[in-house]
Amino acid sequence: MTEDEIKLWVKVQDSKGVDIESVKTRLKAMVIETPTWGYGDSGTRFKVFKQQGAAQNPYEKLEDAAEVHRLTGVCPKVAVHIPWDKVDDYGALRRYALDLGLRIGAVNPNLFQDEDYALGSLCHPRPEVRQKARSHMLECVEIMKKVGSSILSLWLADGTNYPGQDDFRKRRHYLMDALTEVYQVLAPEARLLIEYKMFEPAFYHTDLADWGMAISYAEKLGNKAQVLVDLGHHAQGTNVAHIVATLLDEGKLGGFHFNNRKYADDDLMVGAIAPYELFLIALELVSGEQDPATSECAGRVSYMIDQSHNIEPKISAMIRSVMNIQTAFAKALLVPQGELRQAQAAGDVITAESLVKGAFETDVRPLLALVRKEMGLHTDPLKAYAEGTYIKTILAREFRGQG
Amino acid sequence: MTEDEIKLWVKVQDSKGVDIESVKTRLKAMVIETPTWGYGDSGTRFKVFKQQGAAQNPYEKLEDAAEVHRLTGVCPKVAVHIPWDKVDDYGALRRYALDLGLRIGAVNPNLFQDEDYALGSLCHPRPEVRQKARSHMLECVEIMKKVGSSILSLWLADGTNYPGQDDFRKRRHYLMDALTEVYQVLAPEARLLIEYKMFEPAFYHTDLADWGMAISYAEKLGNKAQVLVDLGHHAQGTNVAHIVATLLDEGKLGGFHFNNRKYADDDLMVGAIAPYELFLIALELVSGEQDPATSECAGRVSYMIDQSHNIEPKISAMIRSVMNIQTAFAKALLVPQGELRQAQAAGDVITAESLVKGAFETDVRPLLALVRKEMGLHTDPLKAYAEGTYIKTILAREFRGQG
Amino acid sequence: MTEDEIKLWVKVQDSKGVDIESVKTRLKAMVIETPTWGYGDSGTRFKVFKQQGAAQNPYEKLEDAAEVHRLTGVCPKVAVHIPWDKVDDYGALRRYALDLGLRIGAVNPNLFQDEDYALGSLCHPRPEVRQKARSHMLECVEIMKKVGSSILSLWLADGTNYPGQDDFRKRRHYLMDALTEVYQVLAPEARLLIEYKMFEPAFYHTDLADWGMAISYAEKLGNKAQVLVDLGHHAQGTNVAHIVATLLDEGKLGGFHFNNRKYADDDLMVGAIAPYELFLIALELVSGEQDPATSECAGRVSYMIDQSHNIEPKISAMIRSVMNIQTAFAKALLVPQGELRQAQAAGDVITAESLVKGAFETDVRPLLALVRKEMGLHTDPLKAYAEGTYIKTILAREFRGQG
Amino acid sequence: MTEDEIKLWVKVQDSKGVDIESVKTRLKAMVIETPTWGYGDSGTRFKVFKQQGAAQNPYEKLEDAAEVHRLTGVCPKVAVHIPWDKVDDYGALRRYALDLGLRIGAVNPNLFQDEDYALGSLCHPRPEVRQKARSHMLECVEIMKKVGSSILSLWLADGTNYPGQDDFRKRRHYLMDALTEVYQVLAPEARLLIEYKMFEPAFYHTDLADWGMAISYAEKLGNKAQVLVDLGHHAQGTNVAHIVATLLDEGKLGGFHFNNRKYADDDLMVGAIAPYELFLIALELVSGEQDPATSECAGRVSYMIDQSHNIEPKISAMIRSVMNIQTAFAKALLVPQGELRQAQAAGDVITAESLVKGAFETDVRPLLALVRKEMGLHTDPLKAYAEGTYIKTILAREFRGQG
Repeated sequence: MTEDEIKLWVKVQDSKGVDIESVKTRLKAMVIETPTWGYGDSGTRFKVFKQQGAAQNPYEKLEDAAEVHRLTGVCPKVAVHIPWDKVDDYGALRRYALDLGLRIGAVNPNLFQDEDYALGSLCHPRPEVRQKARSHMLECVEIMKKVGSSILSLWLADGTNYPGQDDFRKRRHYLMDALTEVYQVLAPEARLLIEYKMFEPAFYHTDLADWGMAISYAEKLGNKAQVLVDLGHHAQGTNVAHIVATLLDEGKLGGFHFNNRKYADDDLMVGAIAPYELFLIALELVSGEQDPATSECAGRVSYMIDQSHNIEPKISAMIRSVMNIQTAFAKALLVPQGELRQAQAAGDVITAESLVKGAFETDVRPLLALVRKEMGLHTDPLKAYAEGTYIKTILAREFRGQG
Repeated sequence: MTEDEIKLWVKVQDSKGVDIESVKTRLKAMVIETPTWGYGDSGTRFKVFKQQGAAQNPYEKLEDAAEVHRLTGVCPKVAVHIPWDKVDDYGALRRYALDLGLRIGAVNPNLFQDEDYALGSLCHPRPEVRQKARSHMLECVEIMKKVGSSILSLWLADGTNYPGQDDFRKRRHYLMDALTEVYQVLAPEARLLIEYKMFEPAFYHTDLADWGMAISYAEKLGNKAQVLVDLGHHAQGTNVAHIVATLLDEGKLGGFHFNNRKYADDDLMVGAIAPYELFLIALELVSGEQDPATSECAGRVSYMIDQSHNIEPKISAMIRSVMNIQTAFAKALLVPQGELRQAQAAGDVITAESLVKGAFETDVRPLLALVRKEMGLHTDPLKAYAEGTYIKTILAREFRGQG
Repeated sequence: MTEDEIKLWVKVQDSKGVDIESVKTRLKAMVIETPTWGYGDSGTRFKVFKQQGAAQNPYEKLEDAAEVHRLTGVCPKVAVHIPWDKVDDYGALRRYALDLGLRIGAVNPNLFQDEDYALGSLCHPRPEVRQKARSHMLECVEIMKKVGSSILSLWLADGTNYPGQDDFRKRRHYLMDALTEVYQVLAPEARLLIEYKMFEPAFYHTDLADWGMAISYAEKLGNKAQVLVDLGHHAQGTNVAHIVATLLDEGKLGGFHFNNRKYADDDLMVGAIAPYELFLIALELVSGEQDPATSECAGRVSYMIDQSHNIEPKISAMIRSVMNIQTAFAKALLVPQGELRQAQAAGDVITAESLVKGAFETDVRPLLALVRKEMGLHTDPLKAYAEGTYIKTILAREFRGQG
Repeated sequence: MTEDEIKLWVKVQDSKGVDIESVKTRLKAMVIETPTWGYGDSGTRFKVFKQQGAAQNPYEKLEDAAEVHRLTGVCPKVAVHIPWDKVDDYGALRRYALDLGLRIGAVNPNLFQDEDYALGSLCHPRPEVRQKARSHMLECVEIMKKVGSSILSLWLADGTNYPGQDDFRKRRHYLMDALTEVYQVLAPEARLLIEYKMFEPAFYHTDLADWGMAISYAEKLGNKAQVLVDLGHHAQGTNVAHIVATLLDEGKLGGFHFNNRKYADDDLMVGAIAPYELFLIALELVSGEQDPATSECAGRVSYMIDQSHNIEPKISAMIRSVMNIQTAFAKALLVPQGELRQAQAAGDVITAESLVKGAFETDVRPLLALVRKEMGLHTDPLKAYAEGTYIKTILAREFRGQG
């Protein structure tokens, strides 16, 4: 990216009336949370391919996250998963993070990996299993306090595999009871983000199957409960941007698990398959921030990445995802909102569509290079990573392949 | 169906502990509403194939509906669509129905077929179009009073075809305003049923795209507003029975548009493609009726058929759909609820699934023959229709084909 | 688009080693065929919204097509549809086109709109209907000769709505017989393009449901028969670029019906919903042209637009679609094929993906402006249309709305 | 199931003209192959729940398969998977099977679980990995000879996760080369069955993504190569019965992997979600057997089960699947083919649909009880299993849970 390109880019956008300073300010203020589990080995049900250099414990995962933050400047927070990130001393973990320039973001309970959970956790037919799951949730609330987290991020894998296997409505009540108990012990400033997913690992019904089910609990619980949108958890064809706008309008959009998919919950790199959809979601968020009626909710939305890097190097993949999110938001910030509203009001479909698409067509790499430069970063984080020393550090980690 | 078959069927079920009298009572009390538009010509965007004998006006449509009721005994109500069924004297229409042994069921406004509605109706960007659409809704409330209907059934086709075409959240507010106005003039005992649909005729977003969006309005409006489930309006893979259970649990299940589909909103005969799914939905309704917590809501659910008979004779198709609904409910009534609950509580997946599937495997044609016999009907409505005189009556109607 | 932007664009790409002259040459040589029916009113099964100025007859449609060609420079061919474009004197139609600077492209038979075709045409259970449909196909071959067309483009809507309605294998044989008869009378240099579609208007099975079924006939028929890919005719999630590559590899890719969809066969403007998918398809075509093993097949692929402009002005929509196709191809031509092959061979997933995505991220509006300038065109066809006189000409056409 | 029920059932069907003896003969002759891997622990990418009693090695798996055969009488063959069932002495394995009353059915190579296969196996970009995969295929051909198998069943998991990751057409050629090599060493009477799958574990493209791709290789290879249909490997909405009919018509239907799904490749028990679809597929097979043009192909089709019993007891699940397949075929055998053909020829949609659906509505449990009785089996295999001693045998196996 040459100086000339950047300068001309600024000049061109300036001539169109874009307030470049405020665009840059917004981009610099962006916070994208990366997940510890994105730095470890993951795979499909058929195989987990082990990678040389993949992080093996919570500390190495934090180190990898710190590298991503060092290169991108927008990833100061890290989501943890219990028990994958279970440690004896959470205060030490928090300090380790702080020393790396990081804070702990969302705490993610695990309600799907214990042998007891074959038929569910918070919705399990047997009370002792439900109690165990609730205890784990309460334990996570305790951990939140220790690590300084303000978000409890619940993905509930519960569901059934066969018609008749269990009673949908009974399970609803079990879940409401459990969430009520957990909600009550949440700190006043903390939030419970309720995720939903169409299917997998449950194959007939999932107790939290869509945003309507998630918001139903969030509304009954109260202000601290909101909905988390994972981009890979919808039926094919679903208009996710529309759901995002609806949740914003209800004040119930709590956060995102960014990733991409072509088929199901593929957990690919953000923006890798459907970059225009990602941009349209970013546009709802940007519009929501600029509208006084929704700005408070939009301003608190947590941007989290949730991916599974099965075949690609994990840190590179994370950097690329961060860059793709930045790209989508940068383009969304270029949409001329005033002109767009005029075209919409006039029912001028072609112009309205062109204005939105035109922003997407714009190459924002010069802008992002400028932003990074002003943040004291390399203009190309992926290149910086490839040329840096950290990659050698991780390759020196002991390899546990063929396991 | 021989007497022997019926007797043995009763004996076998009796020996299993089935309370056959109460099953028969429930089946006899069933009310399925057929739609006037199911008796007229319909088609795809590519072609409407005209049928000799298809009803040409509201009066002929009522006559056809009366024939379906005469043969099945469970279809005393007819849904009307304004303006397709617009007449000068609605009192006369109501009396015509009464003379045929029918009552008018739901009144369905039409907010998609006026030239003004290309970009929407209640959600249109221009206020004068929104006002026109609201006036039509209010007109329909007036018609409800004249025809003795207690249900206003809203399918809102509004949506956009392109990203950026209009503002999702603004349209939400337009819709809430409109529904609030309509809700206020509804009679105290009347209900507003809010339908949702994933797509078509809008191809980018639909303002009421899923059950979550529909219930959001229904909850804000109040007790008279509920959600209507059309079986063809979901994304592929959606677990509709789960949605039905959820709506029941929230007291917000208002009614059904029964039909079947393989792909999109195909509007095929009920049960023609996925009879097991239909049965599982019936099972939720039957269970909901038997549970004190949901019995009131379940007891008021309107069962309506909404089909488009493009290639098959319309009255035969309607009869067959009614029979398929009866079949699904008859089987659902045979599920041994006590045993099922035991198996579910024990986490015995194989047994629970087998009990449900076993009821579905049961041939209920003997039972339905018995029910019809006791109702004074022919045991095979389709055969009775084929051998009756009504089919000649309609074939004598003037043909308007090749139009 | 300023001169500076264009110059810098050229400079930047030049520095990356892009052979800009050959890219421009390819873009100038592009031929996109527009369909007469895209200029007339169309709609959904619920409503056809009439537009002031929409073409009412084949001659007006050709005039509109000529305007699109005048503004874009890459649309010299027009597809016709029989009987929608039926005229007494096809020679006169051809000359009218020539006078407008146009040639007739594909001839499209209509096998779905006659009352006889409710249960099928070439696959109808009754021989007299099959014969009628075959005669129509033969008539179209005659028309091809009269209008100077070399492509017979078959979309067969045949199928069934219900399980059991007809015999899949029997219908296969009917179809093979019919196509064999038609194939034999095709001129040696002519081609039969066989389209496929998952569903609609048939809702249980479609006789030509996927590319595998289409190619099966094309292979048995011979070299003059190939497959036509309509971008809206696949199941959700289908990797269309993969199908395109496969058809190219088999020498059986005959042409495209370009459009876009989010749900089913929505027939929206090209590139409006999934521009990255469009680009990836263009990339297969560009790669296919550059590979000696597939260049002959790729070089003969017909690029046709097939859209239904329900709510947007038709000529503007067509222009925008043409521009979006150009955009996708321009970006595809920028992919550094050598570097890409290296990364692929090395199994370097991140780099390979980045190279492809990087080309997509490039803003090619300066390039297309330059190409248009060198072709003697306005750099912004949509603006030229809006500011031109033709729009007034069509608005002066008699309006036939509210019909 | 009482004697009375069975007798009345026979009487009723007899009166309808059903040739009950030939129906029973066909049902007794059915051969359903069960897979060794269905008896071991399996799960999702999130968790493999270990079951007490699940088979731990090839010998235990054969023992479980023998129990299923002992109870159902139609499962004399067992599919093996290499290397999951790798043993030092395949002759011993074969003899062990024979002693249990079993034969080895299909040999399934594994091309997805080695660390080398992250980017593919037969289609891998690097020649040494392709060579390794080919060697494994050749090894499996050797094993076929040792275990007496005549079927090589290829599920190729190869694909890519990202656009641009690899070259579709190049990989096609790699695959063709590999299959050609393998095909040449196949014994004359052996068959290569080529499976296809839409997605998973590959998330952008799968090299063998649909039946069209699979048959393309099978046709080029020759008569010994056919296509294998796994019921869970299609896009949502796909009409699988239509594909089955098409493959039969081409003489290329080689076998099935029976299972069921609601969403993706869920690998649930056969018939658990969509029993009507299963019946319609069975109807194509039964019709194909009765038609001289397809009877040879239909007669050689391998019926194999391929499931993943994540939460349900494995042997019970297998028995239930076998029973569900029998149910579907029993019903299909009851369709009155002559009447159906008449109704189809007459275009009588309602009657044709009713005839097919009527057979499905028939309760065939009396028929299957009779068949089992005549085969010397318990009339309810699931009950026999629950009450038998084998269940205690396996529960005595060492448990390896919480692993």
